[in-house]
Amino acid sequence: MPQSGQQRGLFITLEGIEGAGKSTQQEYIARLLIQRGHRVVQTREPGGTALGEAIRSTLLAHTGNHAISHDTELLLMFAARCQHVDEIIRPNIEAGITVLSDRFTDSSFAYQGGGRGIAAGRIRSLQQWVHPDLNPDLTLLLDLPVATGLERVGRRGESDRFEAEELEFFEAVRSTYLDMAAAEPQRFEIIDANRNLAEIQDNIRAVLEKRAIV
Amino acid sequence: MPQSGQQRGLFITLEGIEGAGKSTQQEYIARLLIQRGHRVVQTREPGGTALGEAIRSTLLAHTGNHAISHDTELLLMFAARCQHVDEIIRPNIEAGITVLSDRFTDSSFAYQGGGRGIAAGRIRSLQQWVHPDLNPDLTLLLDLPVATGLERVGRRGESDRFEAEELEFFEAVRSTYLDMAAAEPQRFEIIDANRNLAEIQDNIRAVLEKRAIV
Repeated sequence: MPQSGQQRGLFITLEGIEGAGKSTQQEYIARLLIQRGHRVVQTREPGGTALGEAIRSTLLAHTGNHAISHDTELLLMFAARCQHVDEIIRPNIEAGITVLSDRFTDSSFAYQGGGRGIAAGRIRSLQQWVHPDLNPDLTLLLDLPVATGLERVGRRGESDRFEAEELEFFEAVRSTYLDMAAAEPQRFEIIDANRNLAEIQDNIRAVLEKRAIV
Repeated sequence: MPQSGQQRGLFITLEGIEGAGKSTQQEYIARLLIQRGHRVVQTREPGGTALGEAIRSTLLAHTGNHAISHDTELLLMFAARCQHVDEIIRPNIEAGITVLSDRFTDSSFAYQGGGRGIAAGRIRSLQQWVHPDLNPDLTLLLDLPVATGLERVGRRGESDRFEAEELEFFEAVRSTYLDMAAAEPQRFEIIDANRNLAEIQDNIRAVLEKRAIV
């Protein structure tokens, strides 16, 4: 369903733990949307803007004696997000362009909330502060067992601050995601990412067709 | 009045527009406190921690096409402040050490509130989020006419993002400071910084003696 220039663009987000395949599926979804006539902007969090990328580097690099406190980490995530909303997400949506983001505020609830233990109410108050009237139209949760995701990440040879966390942390992240998806079925679609690529992409395409997005 | 190791340290902040002489007076106050038996930590915002200094650099450098939005700037200030409180201010105060900070949350009300026009209620909600139970015991507002302050800064040959702002901006910052000082006379002392160094320092010493701090 192509978007006209006058119509508001869609805001679609991808969520999931490390190794769920968000980057790969984002590329696939973007191609699919473009084929069906959408104008598309791909972006990610933290990052997506020059400022956001600087914050992302700071967050991923900052380890050691003066580790960033959990509350500070959450505020940085929302600072990057605020700029991301103002500079990328809102202007594109208003111009009728579909915005496809690798992570958004659900990641804060999953990682800083479920993972690090910050109360959901405290996260919600920053969400209300930063984007009271903006929410994704569709969130694809790429779900798979934590051990499988971490194994995939290991295979890529990457390692950063989050990936060094304990298995328990990622179990809490995953279950927070699943709870959120259960609570908001009209916005979330859970994609079983523990399958081969063709099956996952068939599932994604079916979901987008069902929702009349492609 | 020396602080014992068991007693809570004082939290003293310096506020004022550019060119008010905060750095110079901070050094003077620190010497005075140490002479009278205080253990003292000097710090500043934004900055004061490794993370805060990184954020400070980002904020001061970020100009041009993708300027940081006012809300993002405020969130970054509070992220730096959150780390500053957790890593420096609270642990030192609890260890009986007097913390002397060049700027704290009053700067956000003056610059991002009065200067940039963010509603005080929005700033207050972040203040409550980050440090609901921490406030300076004493805030010295170094006050002087905006033109004099900017002339002094020009004389130092420095220039950054804030100093490039209009005179009008700094007038709003100054008057917000003065309003806050009038609203909280038990916490604020206004120091007339438009005098020679000896007079200003006599005034500061008299204020600290009157409050039984030195």
